[in-house]
Parts: sequence; C-alpha cells; structure tokens
Amino acid sequence: MHELGVVRRTIERVDRAAVDALSPFSVATVHEAMGRLGLMRPYIRPVYEGARLCGTAVTVLLQPGDNWMLHVAAEQVREGDVVVAGCTTESEDGFFGELLATSLRARGAEGLVIDGGCRDVDELRTMDFPVFSRAVNAKGTVKATLGSVNVPVVVANALVNPGDVVVADADGVVVVPAARAAEVAAAAARREAAEEGKRERFRAGELGLDLYGMRGPLAELGLTYVD
Amino acid sequence: MHELGVVRRTIERVDRAAVDALSPFSVATVHEAMGRLGLMRPYIRPVYEGARLCGTAVTVLLQPGDNWMLHVAAEQVREGDVVVAGCTTESEDGFFGELLATSLRARGAEGLVIDGGCRDVDELRTMDFPVFSRAVNAKGTVKATLGSVNVPVVVANALVNPGDVVVADADGVVVVPAARAAEVAAAAARREAAEEGKRERFRAGELGLDLYGMRGPLAELGLTYVD
Amino acid sequence: MHELGVVRRTIERVDRAAVDALSPFSVATVHEAMGRLGLMRPYIRPVYEGARLCGTAVTVLLQPGDNWMLHVAAEQVREGDVVVAGCTTESEDGFFGELLATSLRARGAEGLVIDGGCRDVDELRTMDFPVFSRAVNAKGTVKATLGSVNVPVVVANALVNPGDVVVADADGVVVVPAARAAEVAAAAARREAAEEGKRERFRAGELGLDLYGMRGPLAELGLTYVD
Amino acid sequence: MHELGVVRRTIERVDRAAVDALSPFSVATVHEAMGRLGLMRPYIRPVYEGARLCGTAVTVLLQPGDNWMLHVAAEQVREGDVVVAGCTTESEDGFFGELLATSLRARGAEGLVIDGGCRDVDELRTMDFPVFSRAVNAKGTVKATLGSVNVPVVVANALVNPGDVVVADADGVVVVPAARAAEVAAAAARREAAEEGKRERFRAGELGLDLYGMRGPLAELGLTYVD
Amino acid sequence: MHELGVVRRTIERVDRAAVDALSPFSVATVHEAMGRLGLMRPYIRPVYEGARLCGTAVTVLLQPGDNWMLHVAAEQVREGDVVVAGCTTESEDGFFGELLATSLRARGAEGLVIDGGCRDVDELRTMDFPVFSRAVNAKGTVKATLGSVNVPVVVANALVNPGDVVVADADGVVVVPAARAAEVAAAAARREAAEEGKRERFRAGELGLDLYGMRGPLAELGLTYVD
Amino acid sequence: MHELGVVRRTIERVDRAAVDALSPFSVATVHEAMGRLGLMRPYIRPVYEGARLCGTAVTVLLQPGDNWMLHVAAEQVREGDVVVAGCTTESEDGFFGELLATSLRARGAEGLVIDGGCRDVDELRTMDFPVFSRAVNAKGTVKATLGSVNVPVVVANALVNPGDVVVADADGVVVVPAARAAEVAAAAARREAAEEGKRERFRAGELGLDLYGMRGPLAELGLTYVD
Repeated sequence: MHELGVVRRTIERVDRAAVDALSPFSVATVHEAMGRLGLMRPYIRPVYEGARLCGTAVTVLLQPGDNWMLHVAAEQVREGDVVVAGCTTESEDGFFGELLATSLRARGAEGLVIDGGCRDVDELRTMDFPVFSRAVNAKGTVKATLGSVNVPVVVANALVNPGDVVVADADGVVVVPAARAAEVAAAAARREAAEEGKRERFRAGELGLDLYGMRGPLAELGLTYVD
Repeated sequence: MHELGVVRRTIERVDRAAVDALSPFSVATVHEAMGRLGLMRPYIRPVYEGARLCGTAVTVLLQPGDNWMLHVAAEQVREGDVVVAGCTTESEDGFFGELLATSLRARGAEGLVIDGGCRDVDELRTMDFPVFSRAVNAKGTVKATLGSVNVPVVVANALVNPGDVVVADADGVVVVPAARAAEVAAAAARREAAEEGKRERFRAGELGLDLYGMRGPLAELGLTYVD
Repeated sequence: MHELGVVRRTIERVDRAAVDALSPFSVATVHEAMGRLGLMRPYIRPVYEGARLCGTAVTVLLQPGDNWMLHVAAEQVREGDVVVAGCTTESEDGFFGELLATSLRARGAEGLVIDGGCRDVDELRTMDFPVFSRAVNAKGTVKATLGSVNVPVVVANALVNPGDVVVADADGVVVVPAARAAEVAAAAARREAAEEGKRERFRAGELGLDLYGMRGPLAELGLTYVD
Repeated sequence: MHELGVVRRTIERVDRAAVDALSPFSVATVHEAMGRLGLMRPYIRPVYEGARLCGTAVTVLLQPGDNWMLHVAAEQVREGDVVVAGCTTESEDGFFGELLATSLRARGAEGLVIDGGCRDVDELRTMDFPVFSRAVNAKGTVKATLGSVNVPVVVANALVNPGDVVVADADGVVVVPAARAAEVAAAAARREAAEEGKRERFRAGELGLDLYGMRGPLAELGLTYVD
Repeated sequence: MHELGVVRRTIERVDRAAVDALSPFSVATVHEAMGRLGLMRPYIRPVYEGARLCGTAVTVLLQPGDNWMLHVAAEQVREGDVVVAGCTTESEDGFFGELLATSLRARGAEGLVIDGGCRDVDELRTMDFPVFSRAVNAKGTVKATLGSVNVPVVVANALVNPGDVVVADADGVVVVPAARAAEVAAAAARREAAEEGKRERFRAGELGLDLYGMRGPLAELGLTYVD
Repeated sequence: MHELGVVRRTIERVDRAAVDALSPFSVATVHEAMGRLGLMRPYIRPVYEGARLCGTAVTVLLQPGDNWMLHVAAEQVREGDVVVAGCTTESEDGFFGELLATSLRARGAEGLVIDGGCRDVDELRTMDFPVFSRAVNAKGTVKATLGSVNVPVVVANALVNPGDVVVADADGVVVVPAARAAEVAAAAARREAAEEGKRERFRAGELGLDLYGMRGPLAELGLTYVD
C-alpha cells in the first residue's frame, strides 16, 4: 500500500457538496453515522481549544524528524483540503509551525492532522489554523529523506486515502471514505434529528431505561435490584 | 467487594450540610485535611477548564466499551449526587456524552467522574456539566453486559463507597468517606485559615525556612552552604 | 556532577541585558538559534494557557515526594530568576502550589520549571505565576530528605547549570547556557527577521519548494510525480 | 478506608486448606471463577519468568520512595503469607531487593506484590523469590514517613484486605476475598474440568462456533458470510 | 475500508512457495527488503522468548473486550495461516488463551498477531504457539458484538489485507502485501547475502566509515575532529 | 554543553584498574555507593536476559531515526569501552543491530547503552553482545544528519562524560564520573561487605526493625500497633 518517493498529482476529491453536507456534524455523530468505523486513535488532540475542521484529504507519509514532504504536499493542496500526515514510525518532533501554516492557508487548506508533533501553537491559535497532533514540541525537523504525497496512509491507526473527507473536533478525528460521504452525511442528519427528540425527553426527566426499552433486556440478563 | 449484576437502591448519603461544608474547599485542601488519603490517580482530568464538582457518590461498575450501567445509574441519582464510575478493565472509549449529561442533570446530578473516556466535550462545556475522565474519545459504546450500581467501586485506584463525598477540581479528584465528611470539612476550614496567615507572611517576603523552622533540621541532616 | 546536601549561594547569572535580549523570542526560535540543542523533553507542559517565562536558573535537585529543597531554593532566588527543579527519580507528586508561588514571587522569581507535579493550578492561573511541569497532582509532599540547590541538574533530559537562561512557552522549555546567551539572542533576532520575509512570501502563495530551492534535491533523490 | 500510621497485628487469614485449594489454579482460571472480579491492572508483571505465588495477604501502604513499612510488615508475616503493597502515589523506585527478600523468606513469606519498583532481580531469580511489580529500578528508597500495615489497601486498582488470598502468575495478579476463597476454589476446579473437555474437542478440530452454539446468535445479529 | 458484520470466506492467499521463500528471513531483513514499509508499531511484542511466525493473514476486526470474531475466524483458517487481529479501539483485555490456541492449531494456524491482550502465556510457551500482542492480561472477554473476518484491517498502524504475508519475530511484526511477496523474498535474499560480506569485513575490524564510504559525505557536512 | 558536528578523538578514560574494581558490583550497589546519584531512568532495559556490562564511555549524540554517528563512534572505540548514546529527541527506531555489534566488538567494545531502539535482539543474544535500550524495533535508520561523538551527553536523564564508567545489569544503568571511580569502587566493596553480615542476620530471622534500630524512630513518629 504505502509507497515512498511518490507524489500523486491527480486525486479524486469528494465533491464539495458532500463535504459541506458533513461539515455541520460533530466527529461523534459522523463516527456513529459511519457505523462506528474510521476513527483515529484518541491520542490525536487539537493543539488549541475550539479547533475544528472538515475537508478533503491530501495525504502525506513522513519520515521521523523530517518534514520535507509537507512542503511537497503544499503544492498539491486545493481550496478545502486538509493535510493528513502519517509517519513511518512514532515521532513527536515539531514537524509543523506557523510558517507552514501560512503557506498551507495561502493554498486554501482547512487545517492539518498529523501523527507527529507541532510547534508555534500560540501563533496557530492566533491564526485560527486548526491542527490536530499527537504532541506539542518545539523541536524542529530536517529535510533529508523522501516520503510520499497522496498515497494511502495509515494515520493514528486509521486508513486515509487521498480525497477522503476528514472531520476533526474536540472529540477526535474521523475519516469518511470518499465513496461513502453522501450516505454518511444523510445518516448523520437522521441521527441528529433523532437525538433532538431524545434530548427533549431526557431533559424532561425521562430515563434512558424507559426511552430505550432497556428494562426487559436487563432483567433477562439477571440484573437484580436490592434495597 | 465488587459485585456484578446488582443495583442497590438504598444508599446512605452524607447529609447535605456536610457536603455543603466541604464544597468551598479545593481538592488539595480536602486531601490534606483527610490526612493525605483518598486521592484518585492524577490521570483523571477535567474535560474542560473550570470544571468543578462536590457531591455524594452514586457508584457504577462498568464493563469495557459498554455504558449500559450509566443508564441504570441515572435512575438512582438524586439532587446533589455525583456519578462515579470505575471499569473492570482499562477502557478509554467514550462512555458518556451530552445526551446522558442531559439525563443526569434532569435527575439532579452535579457531574461525573469516570475511569474511562468521554465525548461531546464542547457540548459539556456549553452545558457546564463537569466531567472528570481519563480520556476524550468519540468512540461510542454498546449496551450488552451487566455491571453494577451502588456497590463499592475502585476508581483510578481510590475506593469509593456509595454515599461518599467526591470533590473534583483542576487538581484532581478526592473521595471523602461518608463517616469522615464533617470532620474533614472542619479540618479543611482550619487548614485554610492557617494558610491565610502563611500566605500573608510569604507575600511579605518571609521564607518557608523561617516560617516553618526548617533551618535546624536541615543543618542537623548535614545541609551545607557553600559560596 | 550531581551532589546531594549542598546549597551554592554564589552563582554567576547571565547578565540582565542578555536575558532581556532573549526574552521576546519563542522557545522554537531560541531552540533553532541554539543550533537545536538544549530542549527539554516535551512532557513538560505549562499548567495554564498563556504561561510564559524567561529568566536565570536557580537549580534544585529534589527527592521523590519531597519538596524541602524548594524552600531552601527560595532563599537563593533573586529578581528575574526562574526556579528549575529536577528529581532523582520520576515523581509526579504535587511538589508546588500557590503558597510556594507566593513566596517565590515575593523573592522576585519569574516562575518555575519542574520535572514533577504541581497543584493549585487555578490559583496559579489567577496569580499568573507561570509553572511548567510534568503533571498536575493534588498530592502533597513531605520534607524529610536532602537534595541540593544551585548544582548542575538534569531536568527532563536537559542539563541546567545555575545561572543559565531558561525560556518556556506553550511549545516547551529551552535552556541557554550562560556563555552563549548573547550570541543566541543575536541569532534568534536574525532568524526572526529572516522568517518575516519568508512569512510574507508564503502568504503570497509562494511554495516552500521554490522558496527553499527544494525541487533539485528532491529530484536528485528520486522523488517521482505521477498523475 | 486507608489509614496512616497503623499496624494491625491480628488479622483473619483464610484457612490454609482454602489457600491450598486455590493454589493449583492459574490467575486466569481464578479470575473467571470469581465472576471476573478482583484482577489487578496488567501493569503489574513478574520480575522473572516462571514467578508464581499463592498465599494470604499481609497488606502494606507505602509512601513514595520510602520502604520503611516493608520492614514493619516483615514482623507481621507468617508462613504462607504474601506481602501486598500499594502506594499513596505512583512511584517506581526500587522499594524491594534481595536483603528484604531474605528477611521475608526467613519469616515464611511466599513472595511480594508491589505497586512500585523492585531491584536485585537477578538475585531474586536465583533465590526463586517471586516478586510482581510495576517496574524494575535500581533506585533505593528512604525510611522517613509512616504508612500502614494490615489495613485495606488498593493495589493496582484492586482492593486487598489483610488475610485475602492473592494468586499471581505470568498472566497477572488476582485477589480472592477471604470469605469467598473456598467457593472460588470449587468454581475454579469445575471450570478447569469443563475446559479439559473443551480442550479435547478443540484439539480434534471442532470449532468454538459449534462447541459454544454461536452460529444462531451470530446470524441473529446479522453476521453475513460472503464469498 | 473496514466493514462490520462481514465474513469473507474466499480470500486469495499468497502461494505457499512465496511464503516459504520469506520464511527464513528476520523481520528486520524483510522490512528493509520492503523498502522500509509495512512494519507494525513496536508495542506489539512476543508473549514468550523465541516466538516466531511466518504465514498468510486471516484478518479479524475485534470489538473491545469481545473475542467473538476469533471463533468466527477459526473456521476460515487453513494450514499455514496466521490470525491477525485489530480492534476498533485500544483494548488490552485477554482476548486469547490456550483453548483458542488449541483450536487454531487444530485448524493449521501458525500463530496470532493481536492489537490487544493475551493470557495463558505459560501454556502458550509450553505449546510453542507463537502470539504477538500489545499486552498480557488475565482478563477474559465477552461474546456480544459483531466485528468482521477477512476484511482489510489496520493492526498497530499497519494495513493488513487478507492473504498478505505476516512475519514476526523478536524484533516486531511486518506485513508483506500479497502482490509483493515473491519480489520481497528475492530482495531479502540479496540483502542477506550482501550483509554476510559486510559482517566478515566488520569482524576483521574494518570500519563502517570506510566500508560505506562515509568519510567524504561527513566531511562535506562539516563534521569536525578535534583532539 | 551539547555540541553538534564534533568528534573528540582524545578522551581521558578512567584507568583500567578502577574499572576492574567496579566491575564485580551490581548497579544497585554502585548506585548506593555513589550516594544515590547517576542512575539512568528505568525505561532503559537489557534487550536480553543476562546482559551485563562495565566499561568506559565513548559518548554519542544521535539525531532521530539516524545512526550515522554510531559508525563515527566505532572508530573512537578502544578495548574496554562502552558506547553510550543519547538522542536530541525521543526516538525508538532501531539504530543498532548485529552488524554494528560485530563492528563494535571487533574494536573492543563491551556493549551499548542507547536512549533509542535496537533490533536483531536474537542475534545479539547469540553473540552475547549486551545492549541496554529504550525499545526493540525492527525499523532501520538513515545516515543524513550530523550529531557528535565524545561530547558530554544526557542519556535517559543522566549526564555522561566521555571516559566515565558505565555499569549496567538487569536493574538498570548507572554512570560513575571518572574522578569518582576509585572512591566509588571502594565504597561499593564496603557496602557489599556490610550487606553480607546483614544477609546472614536476616536469614536467621532477625527483623530489619531490630537490625536497623527502627522501633524507636517509628514510635516517635506515632506508629501505632493495634490488635
């Protein structure tokens, strides 16, 4: 799957309408709408409170302590893309900072998801350029070894293909395969509508035990109430 | 100690006056007033800045990746309770989100402490429903296996009995056994009063070395000053 | 290197002008200006958002779960110092809280860097007393065993000599040896000036590939573009 | 629950016959026979391959970096006891080595379970004195602060009462409350007998799908086979 | 990519000759021969010293704390297969023990790679049934929720397709895509032959500096020798 | 302290007699004899059971994922040296394997201590070339960026100067500054002699409480015995 030393210039992005349709939903909702698949491991965290993004993936495969491929990726970015970077090994160096953020924003990028470290977090907060990373680290990187751009990449245990939709917020990062974007957006909308009704009933004091009809199954499994 | 498949409906809560007496104090102060016992491991963290709670424990024993017992617990919650959930194993899935928070709040709960993951943290911040958890994770949970409610539970290495007082703030989570609540509140008040005097002396430039009479003991142990 | 039971009263601090010259720069910039040396491991984090410090090191060698030497260090603090504390072992207890912060501030300290835990973080935020620590932990400490003050100390894998400059912000903590302070400040200024020009070019849409002349070296290593 | 500065001299140990009845079974079997309760967190590991123990708990509550209470505990040990030590905080110092092992063995102890570090592991292997710990660490400890002996203690998230049975092997550590020892031994024996039959059937190539009658429930939940 | 509730019965396995060709090589050699791709994260470790395996992947997607799909997978195993199991979330429960090992061996399996916990490690060592896991844990699992078998799965950050070759030894686990197996085996053989020559020269005292011609490039980058 | 791009050819090694004097003692004993200083963090572990070393340090400062400087260091190795390698950042790649071990052994090296990963552990065990590392990892490294050789280096939080004595065994790694080697060996010998006497008394059933005269101090601090 992975390839080194390759940049794919032509990728098929999910169409903008489907991205826009996914955009209002939280990661938790999208993940449920996906059938509970596609979630990155929870060690990927926003570098500042309020960071949120939704866009099409330009993927990057990095080498440890080396951010060369992020510069290569910048050229492949179009309006509405999210750069999504994995690494051939665990590396928490600061691959990314505000200069690269300035470059990516100028190219139209929505933000970055990286299985590595990030620096300049105060500047990124000020710019409101959302980054989701595994670490914050002032340690800079070299430019010495080839990785790849726009190949399938595993990032924090999730497979990302170029052009997939990536949604990230305070709860984590989820990847929606291009082919499923429209369907997942519709399922997310249905789920959110259903939740609104439930929310009202919970607010009124109704119990999940009743709302979800749990009392029977619990009794059947032998749940015992004692005084 | 632990039991599975049991819900105790009748628990003896610390009386409200004792909870109110503990409520103004920080976790650090309560922990000192307890004689430095009852603290959860520090991996339990608030999911948003400013989260704080003090209330009587409704305890829950969860199974990994399964939040069924939180719904069972909701029915046992009374005004002023805190839901305190341990797990039979280490699990960072998102057991809890804003729907359950809505339900718990409708029942009068003050908040949640959970040795597991939590999601919807933006919504929880907006609701100001305090949650202290070991992880933030969009991954939802199933409802398939029995745990228990209102049995003694170990949460982040601290034993919690139903009805105990639980205090949580930015510094962590401490458990005050029901029988000691009044005594600990009194000790906390005394400690805080004593600290106020010390604070003033520190502010005026007095050293801990003098304020605490440390110079003698340090010299006795052989502390050597060199130029 | 390390010594136990010793307090050095006379240390040679970097002169104030050099500290002031370093003060405007971020940790990332100083670290680059140092030639990428002197960075602490990234597990040392600010205890509140916005914490930042720059000052001369008063070093402390702590014993696990014992903060006695912080009181000893307070007496050695002068205006503009930063207390920098390592520990003979990994310990995440709450060695430091607002009373000690009050004392250190009264002595003129700029803040604290500690390879251990810290408590009272709400109060520290209110005081705006910057602390960089490996953990937040309400667990207090004893005063029973000798460490040292103003000896060379390794803190989060970085060597700190008394009098060195320590700079800390959201990205981490860097140590500038006293002898290099002026030179590093000058290099940081040059670097920042150079970055300003780059920032403008990135903002205008120029690529790092062109700005840094990367296309040749990448091609030479065999980077392949495919459609 | 926890108390500091207390040594209980009289504890009720599970009778030897019940300990002997539990002794042949593995931790996994005992844990299943307990109804899947009482397991310590899996970070507690044997310090050498082949370590195994089963005995009655003499409990210890340690302070970080301080092994004083292990010496106090030695006096309370009787033939067939296991010393089980928790700590008021996370501490990986080397609380225990071969001298203390020599002392405990002379008193009749079966071994040690400790939520802390251990040293002299080569010597312990040679002595075949089984230790289960969270770390191996040459760092010694002081004798300065009081803990307790034979109070209820939480060790690696499991509650241990003095006199409980503790079983440990390559898979981990499980605690059997004194009152349940005989019953659990009987259940373990039944379970092992049942497993023998299953083992034979598995060996003969029968599938768990058939042996456990899983095909129906799987189909009901919608498991789909495709070619 | 991932699907839940699906079992693919027909997968295309790498032919036996290619597996046999890969089998003599170490994971390090295969990984190099792959161009340094396909390695699992190093937290996957053998559960006993000397464990080693090479075979074709039958993939499994597990749910946390639930080993149902391992029983479903057993039916899909053929002589020479390795069961390779990922999980929808991080879970260190003991999904696998000697009964399942007996079943898998009866079906012809070579061993197991699992991004989860394993128990009965003493028995597995005795059986010499190689398991590579992220944890050892006596905690058993339930059979309640559907996962999948023989779908593409990400395991410890590596993508595994059913039928790929999986090689594991003391150094870790590497995945060779089916289509590349023969080519990688050939490259591994060439690499090993080349290493033999180098080994002899190193043994004779020749330096890597000379053997690899490093002196020029090092000097060019400015490496300075001082006395 | 750290410098990049420098190789010091002339270092002052502790004389052989002092190394030989230290050689019989365990890390725990040497660490005690040092006054409990100089210990590396306990995450550095032997890669095989029985690994042990004692020699004079040739120090290396590595860059992440880059083992170039180990080849540079090989040339500086003399009979009886130990290569001791730190890294400018946390990196668990496999910097070292059996080819480099063959080279180092040919140069007379006793072994390796590395704050990074190691591979070929089966071969290293067979060669009995002792390595102490923070990880085992098949991932190879590049040769692209300069570090240094024989500069002072911090390794796993311990400062190592070229020529210092490094002792490593199953309990960890300790660094003895060159100037203190003879004195520490003498202290270790005294300590071991004293321990022999204690061992006999412990074996005979005497308690540490009596042997160390602890009963008085414990009573003074208020330790209470209850029945």
